[in-house]
Amino acid sequence: MNALAQLKEHLATIADLDAAAALLGWDQETYMPPGAIEARAAQLTTLARMSHEAFTDETVGRLLDEATASLGDAPYDSDDASLVRVTRRDWQRATKIPADLVGRTARATSLGQQAWQKAREASRFEDFAAHLEEILSLSREKAEALGYDERIYDPLLTEFEPGMSTTQLETIFGDLREQLVPIVEALSPPKRTAPAHHAPRPLDRRFDEQGQWDFGIKLMEDFGFDFERGRQDRSAHPFTTAFAATDVRVTTRIREDFLPAGLFGTLHECGHGLYEQGIASELARTPLAGGASLGVHESQSRLWEILVGRSREFWGHYYPLLCRAFPGKLGDITVDVFYAAANTVCPSLIRVEADEVTYNLHIMLRFELEKDLLEGGLAVADLPEAWNAGMKSYLGIEPDTDADGVLQDIHWSMGAIGYFPTYTLGNLMSAQIFVRLREDIPALQEHIGAGRFGEMLGWLQDNIYRHGRKFTANELLERMGCGELSAEPWLEYIRSKYGELGGVAL
Amino acid sequence: MNALAQLKEHLATIADLDAAAALLGWDQETYMPPGAIEARAAQLTTLARMSHEAFTDETVGRLLDEATASLGDAPYDSDDASLVRVTRRDWQRATKIPADLVGRTARATSLGQQAWQKAREASRFEDFAAHLEEILSLSREKAEALGYDERIYDPLLTEFEPGMSTTQLETIFGDLREQLVPIVEALSPPKRTAPAHHAPRPLDRRFDEQGQWDFGIKLMEDFGFDFERGRQDRSAHPFTTAFAATDVRVTTRIREDFLPAGLFGTLHECGHGLYEQGIASELARTPLAGGASLGVHESQSRLWEILVGRSREFWGHYYPLLCRAFPGKLGDITVDVFYAAANTVCPSLIRVEADEVTYNLHIMLRFELEKDLLEGGLAVADLPEAWNAGMKSYLGIEPDTDADGVLQDIHWSMGAIGYFPTYTLGNLMSAQIFVRLREDIPALQEHIGAGRFGEMLGWLQDNIYRHGRKFTANELLERMGCGELSAEPWLEYIRSKYGELGGVAL
Repeated sequence: MNALAQLKEHLATIADLDAAAALLGWDQETYMPPGAIEARAAQLTTLARMSHEAFTDETVGRLLDEATASLGDAPYDSDDASLVRVTRRDWQRATKIPADLVGRTARATSLGQQAWQKAREASRFEDFAAHLEEILSLSREKAEALGYDERIYDPLLTEFEPGMSTTQLETIFGDLREQLVPIVEALSPPKRTAPAHHAPRPLDRRFDEQGQWDFGIKLMEDFGFDFERGRQDRSAHPFTTAFAATDVRVTTRIREDFLPAGLFGTLHECGHGLYEQGIASELARTPLAGGASLGVHESQSRLWEILVGRSREFWGHYYPLLCRAFPGKLGDITVDVFYAAANTVCPSLIRVEADEVTYNLHIMLRFELEKDLLEGGLAVADLPEAWNAGMKSYLGIEPDTDADGVLQDIHWSMGAIGYFPTYTLGNLMSAQIFVRLREDIPALQEHIGAGRFGEMLGWLQDNIYRHGRKFTANELLERMGCGELSAEPWLEYIRSKYGELGGVAL
Repeated sequence: MNALAQLKEHLATIADLDAAAALLGWDQETYMPPGAIEARAAQLTTLARMSHEAFTDETVGRLLDEATASLGDAPYDSDDASLVRVTRRDWQRATKIPADLVGRTARATSLGQQAWQKAREASRFEDFAAHLEEILSLSREKAEALGYDERIYDPLLTEFEPGMSTTQLETIFGDLREQLVPIVEALSPPKRTAPAHHAPRPLDRRFDEQGQWDFGIKLMEDFGFDFERGRQDRSAHPFTTAFAATDVRVTTRIREDFLPAGLFGTLHECGHGLYEQGIASELARTPLAGGASLGVHESQSRLWEILVGRSREFWGHYYPLLCRAFPGKLGDITVDVFYAAANTVCPSLIRVEADEVTYNLHIMLRFELEKDLLEGGLAVADLPEAWNAGMKSYLGIEPDTDADGVLQDIHWSMGAIGYFPTYTLGNLMSAQIFVRLREDIPALQEHIGAGRFGEMLGWLQDNIYRHGRKFTANELLERMGCGELSAEPWLEYIRSKYGELGGVAL
């Protein structure tokens, strides 16, 4: 067997270990009984340690060298050249992190997630504080092991978004904020008046859980999610995971008193799921079987959730179906009123329920807080206060409880420091990609208005999904002809959509 | 770290790998989308191979030797002495089986299970035949690798029931059959008359699925199943698995048109689950964390399902609750009629729905067929015919379809050759153990009649469950004062119960 074949066989074993660990993680959030948490933490620790040990084995370095030599003039974008290139990048990262640190992190984050869940239920940040302290300490240990030129946040950020730096991010976010603040101010309800309670609020009516579930499944089917190769379950904090392109698990959380939580949450996770299901079968059981980056992954969840799922064309088709699915609920509401309600801009407490315009301010808050926590400028004990002050400063509102504030997101309990900014990067990319989609499929808006998504899904599969991790975000954008990453297409989209909705020039 | 501590650490890693594989297996039967079967087979193959490689590593042999030397005069029944003793037994078995064979078997049985499920749905044995051929071939390969003095079936049987031989089994089964046949004949409906359609058939009425589910959960709670450390889900073929004593998964299959399938199936799997939940926490993540043997495990499922759950005392308490759970369903049926219906003796096609008297004839058929298949006296292609002929000969009836015949059980598709006889061994042991239980808890029948199971569960935990795999079946029976394994207590119980029910001397 040649070096490349040996390498692939070794990597397939690691992919299987990682898939098993991912299933343990999925089960932990969906079905696992609470008493199992200690045993599960031990199991996850073992699998993470074995995967890390197998991947950082010196054999891999040798096989990578031999495989590189044997590649000859294989094109940059060939599967084999990409496999060797991306695996080497991963391997260089991984060999810098001691197996022991990987194991301790898996254990701390497994316990941390359980503690976070309980702390959120009780709305007591202090029950989670020690876990966060430990997770930050492990994150610093990891950043030091990986090394960095400028900022300790850099090596954590690039785990999720290769090629991006903290300083670059601060620049892009600064620009975006400068243009976004006047837009949000122009669209927000006047501060000194009470909220407009006389306006119809169709989304706050009571929609029964089973009806929401069924409607969500129908939308997923229409989008093209393949239930022969995936499923949807319930979890406290929606997420998507995959154990193969043929086994993609999305999760959702339905609230009977707030339709958007389940409805748009389902479309969002479905976008992630479509990406995973679209990865070429040739890449199965290799390090290329995944999304290019978290930003690119998020661009797809936001594209399906928002650019499609919150568009006027979409509801022109689906609003009559929604009315029929919930008889007697929406008879007094026109599609235009519903569309406006689904796109209300109003500062709010919960990120996952925020409108798309204020959403990026939620992200900026988290990015700045986790950066300060990591760099030591902010103590964990002071985090709730800093959170509330940040909310006040960016959005003009403050949470009454930790559950609605600092405890609302699962990410820190998972040790995912450096993850949040990718949400905003995803938003920016989704608008850039959608501009190209409309150029290549001139009838795109008509397709959406007819509930036909096949051509669009095919385009995304061809241009993004099938490539898995072969290319970076920048490479993908360039290959699609989107140009460099830019906030302009997104700001243009926001100005156009909300200028029209609000009857104002933005 | 001394040799024993090193051994324990190494074994804990293996236990975690096995737990992950068990979760993958559970998921495959409960939630996994069908398209994932190939990916799941690869994952299970990898985990089985890694576990096998780690366990058969020569380090384990060396550590076992050193640990044995360091044990000194640790008592036979101490955790440490038992750990070393049982691990050595397992290790000697495992080192004889090549890692490659383990991997091929995991893959063949994963695909085999999927094929069996589809073949059963279509009732086409020929769709499963090639898989069974492959599984038998791998089983023979395994038996040859393990070695045997007399019969090729021996080394497969002892995987599930250490210390038992094919010849011994033939003797016990021969004795049992000799006494059982006249009992079944005396209790069966007359052959030349039509079935007694005028008799009330309370169990065939329609009981809605959710009501059955809820009633089953209530019974499990009363028995003492801890839902903080376990859960119940649905599967096509009910089974119980555990990833820790704190994470025990039972599954059930509910049929709205046949109450016993879900009701007694739930009690049966609950018995398995109580065993797993009762294993001492000191044995966690060691090879001792499991049931003593399949026979002992089955003795507990049958004890809770039948000796408790089909007794007159039990229904004296629970029948009024069942009536209340299904309003208007059972108003015309007295508890005695219901009790008689729940204990009707009548030859039938499906093993898992068979009454306890004819049940062992189902087992004898499977034991003889799998023995003949393995030894080469029966060809796979001839199996459906042999099955039907056996059913005719033992029970006087023949299935119309393969689904109701040779395809009804999952076991062969899992590669579990040598497994079936343990069902009958479990029945025999359950009666032996119940005799001892009644001696130690004189008020046992009153407890059951009051829906109080705490003292009984405590006795079983102390005498059986907490020991995990420390002792063999024979050792456990002896420690409990049950004497040697014998069919007499079971036959005595059958004669007494059914003599009274049928008004005949047996």
